[in-house]
Amino acid sequence: MVYLNGNFIKKNKAFVSVMDRGFLFGDSIYEVLPVYEGNIFCMKPHLDRLDNNLKTVNIPNPHTSEKWAKLLRELLAHQPKHKHQYIYLQVTRGCDVDRKHTYDKLEPTVYMQSTSFEDSNRDEYLLGASAITRDDIRWSQCNIKVTSLLANIMYAQEAKQNNVEEVILCRDNVVTECSSSNLFIVKNGCVYTHPKGPHILPGITREVVLECADYCGINTEEVPISKEDLFDADEVWISSSTREVLPITKIDSVLINQGQVGEIWPLVYDRFQVEKSLNG
Amino acid sequence: MVYLNGNFIKKNKAFVSVMDRGFLFGDSIYEVLPVYEGNIFCMKPHLDRLDNNLKTVNIPNPHTSEKWAKLLRELLAHQPKHKHQYIYLQVTRGCDVDRKHTYDKLEPTVYMQSTSFEDSNRDEYLLGASAITRDDIRWSQCNIKVTSLLANIMYAQEAKQNNVEEVILCRDNVVTECSSSNLFIVKNGCVYTHPKGPHILPGITREVVLECADYCGINTEEVPISKEDLFDADEVWISSSTREVLPITKIDSVLINQGQVGEIWPLVYDRFQVEKSLNG
Repeated sequence: MVYLNGNFIKKNKAFVSVMDRGFLFGDSIYEVLPVYEGNIFCMKPHLDRLDNNLKTVNIPNPHTSEKWAKLLRELLAHQPKHKHQYIYLQVTRGCDVDRKHTYDKLEPTVYMQSTSFEDSNRDEYLLGASAITRDDIRWSQCNIKVTSLLANIMYAQEAKQNNVEEVILCRDNVVTECSSSNLFIVKNGCVYTHPKGPHILPGITREVVLECADYCGINTEEVPISKEDLFDADEVWISSSTREVLPITKIDSVLINQGQVGEIWPLVYDRFQVEKSLNG
Repeated sequence: MVYLNGNFIKKNKAFVSVMDRGFLFGDSIYEVLPVYEGNIFCMKPHLDRLDNNLKTVNIPNPHTSEKWAKLLRELLAHQPKHKHQYIYLQVTRGCDVDRKHTYDKLEPTVYMQSTSFEDSNRDEYLLGASAITRDDIRWSQCNIKVTSLLANIMYAQEAKQNNVEEVILCRDNVVTECSSSNLFIVKNGCVYTHPKGPHILPGITREVVLECADYCGINTEEVPISKEDLFDADEVWISSSTREVLPITKIDSVLINQGQVGEIWPLVYDRFQVEKSLNG
């Protein structure tokens, strides 16, 4: 069962008007929330970011955080008892009577679904994953989680065709983030990631990774990372709601740390698992 | 009546699945075709651009140009007899069983509607219109006519709030185009517009305007235009399928040509009207 504008219905019965601005313009905001053993991970930061993003693009938030929390729990109650799930939530500006770029006051469209997913597997992650680098062709407001996602789609498909996990994006020789995850490098025991700003999504998982590193007594710095820094790193990781923190050991066919997952990653990953069990 | 996936139906009955990638990702291509007195203006260039854009983003073109022409005429036959209309046409990558950034082979979704519109009014245009300038925050593939349009939406709304016709976009001090139109300036009798490339849409109307100028014996050059050139211009025009060629006489509260429409614009506009009547 999925949620659409107040109703829990079957997914194959969930339709929106062709006049929905989500369909016509990619005019909507979304969130992806992991659910571990029935507990929504980092619900408050996700709902806060949703609220911030809606404000930024001037879509009225249709619900209070309390109402969102209630709806999310109702959505989960309608699912089969998957051990782990992730909720996809989309709020569009709504449906107008005709297509025009400008908008007046509309009733936002709310869509939510929950999908089962496999928890991360430490042993698999220890094998390391691959990535490729590409120039960042996206707009300059990547901090907003909008559904105008065609650039990201093109990268995701390129990753798939190249049989790699992710595309690492470079803007003016600075590696900012990936097509659907944030990026970290480790050098001489310190964890580096791009500072928040218009060129990266302020990932909720990114914050948790920084907190985990901090908890483990590892130094962290939010500074721009050059392409040279990337290839010279001791470790490279990516983070996202569905991948948690995943080590990258090969980039553009170049091995990182001789293709081996480094020593810092297991500490942060293991702490992340504790955070998952504590949260909810 | 609108067209959706093979059927002519009432607009308020036209719905797409929430799993349509147009809705989830802005993963679609669109076109807007003006129709004057029942004749589709520049149909072939529009259908050629559609085909090119679909190829660029790897969506299979669901129809041959001949089939598209037939469908467009059928759509028009289903409309009340408006003197002038414009057809909106959208092709999404299609509907998947679940939401994922990557895609496999899908059946594209095709949506078309036709809307009546008022023809341009020479006397009104002679009053001149206003615009504002803003930095271009869009992605670097503005030559593709995709529905991932949130940046354009934000500009359109800003124009509306500022009570101006358009937002002129600047990238690294070069004025490229506007949020939904191409840009021209006139200086010392020569018409200038930004060259084709990734930072502007290759407008069909832009081509017609250049042809009209050429027909009138006016020199044209496709070169980058600086912000200084813009404010120093004798004339500034914008062009789009629904606005044809429209003179701008005030930018950021600064008058262009002392707020008067220049001498070249009427020649090109009048020739454009002839092109409209010849085409079809």
